[in-house]
Amino acid sequence: MCELLAMSANVPTDIVFSFTGLVERGGVTGPHTDGWGITFYEGKGCRTFKDPQASCQSEVANLIKRYPIKSCSVISHIRQANRGAVNLENTHPFCRQLWGRNWTFAHNGQLSGYKQKLKVSQDLPIGNTDSELAFCWLLERIKEKYPKRPNNIKTLFRYIAKCADELRQLGVFNMILSDGDYVMCYCTNNLSWITRQAPFGVAKLIDTDMVVDFSEETTPNDVVSVIATRPLTSDETWNKMQAGDWQLFRLGVPVDGRLLGNKVS
Amino acid sequence: MCELLAMSANVPTDIVFSFTGLVERGGVTGPHTDGWGITFYEGKGCRTFKDPQASCQSEVANLIKRYPIKSCSVISHIRQANRGAVNLENTHPFCRQLWGRNWTFAHNGQLSGYKQKLKVSQDLPIGNTDSELAFCWLLERIKEKYPKRPNNIKTLFRYIAKCADELRQLGVFNMILSDGDYVMCYCTNNLSWITRQAPFGVAKLIDTDMVVDFSEETTPNDVVSVIATRPLTSDETWNKMQAGDWQLFRLGVPVDGRLLGNKVS
Repeated sequence: MCELLAMSANVPTDIVFSFTGLVERGGVTGPHTDGWGITFYEGKGCRTFKDPQASCQSEVANLIKRYPIKSCSVISHIRQANRGAVNLENTHPFCRQLWGRNWTFAHNGQLSGYKQKLKVSQDLPIGNTDSELAFCWLLERIKEKYPKRPNNIKTLFRYIAKCADELRQLGVFNMILSDGDYVMCYCTNNLSWITRQAPFGVAKLIDTDMVVDFSEETTPNDVVSVIATRPLTSDETWNKMQAGDWQLFRLGVPVDGRLLGNKVS
Repeated sequence: MCELLAMSANVPTDIVFSFTGLVERGGVTGPHTDGWGITFYEGKGCRTFKDPQASCQSEVANLIKRYPIKSCSVISHIRQANRGAVNLENTHPFCRQLWGRNWTFAHNGQLSGYKQKLKVSQDLPIGNTDSELAFCWLLERIKEKYPKRPNNIKTLFRYIAKCADELRQLGVFNMILSDGDYVMCYCTNNLSWITRQAPFGVAKLIDTDMVVDFSEETTPNDVVSVIATRPLTSDETWNKMQAGDWQLFRLGVPVDGRLLGNKVS
């Protein structure tokens, strides 16, 4: 199992607080020592930092903790390998072009029989993980259905959720997907999310001794949603997703989805 | 004009020395203040660090100067914008998948009439530079000719050089291209390269007060080629390329090409 983290926000926001909690799981409070990556969007552009080393020992992860890159859409992943060797080409997130935008994907879980069932012809995987192949398959399914970007974006993401339902038939498929504008998450068994907005309060990380007072870091109009494998803070109410649930965010706001789950503190 | 830098080596080699010279040109000894990027291959995987800020002021560039990431294939670029706004999506190098490998591209120069002449259907640009469009066009031309990776790699790169000849008709087209295994450079007016091998000597950077004794940094079997817009060192003999020249490297060794130019010290 791996750890996923994503953020959608209506103003460029740094993810230092949440990322600090996440990297602890990469070898300190969690066993995920097989690499990590993080993608920040800035407009249509994005940049990915990744390392096949444990995040708690990574020079590059230290940079990200110190250096508050601000973004409206962020995807991060720390890895505990179960399919594919520990190397850079197997390190999430994966990024590909579709309709002139960068699409970024990260996966938590494990699929079976994927090499037989997920056939691709153009969007070929570079590494040999189930995750990257699932992403390539998803992109080809999307392009087949929509050669051009559809105007109705909700219809598009509902179609992506249907494809994800098929992937879930092959095993555990928790996914984060973004085109920089929208951030989507899809759950099989481990995903929670929270939307923070005024009035902002104080939160404490579960994984390390760090507290943030969001009211000091934000303006009253900020809306920030955070998605993670497990809740990152101990004193806030997260939405715990159930199998087949998915949620779509834009500019921090949940805009569509299927949520059967319960709130958890 | 921008500055290009690339390396091909037979053992993972750090590029700290050459990169240190390059970043000085990003706002100190050169006017290239509109962003920079660098791609390191590790096997089939690669990672790109980029920033739309001047390299001499960039936190991330400082990390790269301190942190010797070792690689057999590296491409770097610092930008002085002439086509397309200064933002992340317009920052080189650009990376796309072809035949299950990461292909990385950086361009120095300026093209005219490119929007009319370079038509693409699938590999769409994300930003709005002439460079990224030229890369997309090149990829589509390659895929059209070779739906699968050809066995004869020299034939492939000779075809790429022919496509580059066409791009050169549109203006200045100095290019670095790599699939991680091979590194190719194509010249219109400003590219030089050097191959370093035993016996290794001492070299001094032109752009900053830094000297390296390669014999202390290498083993006798190392072969390292470096390509740059202008020679980076003052006391070595670089091969200066001429219009239409191209050179292909693998594991540090020049393996094919067309070189009409003269040696310069």
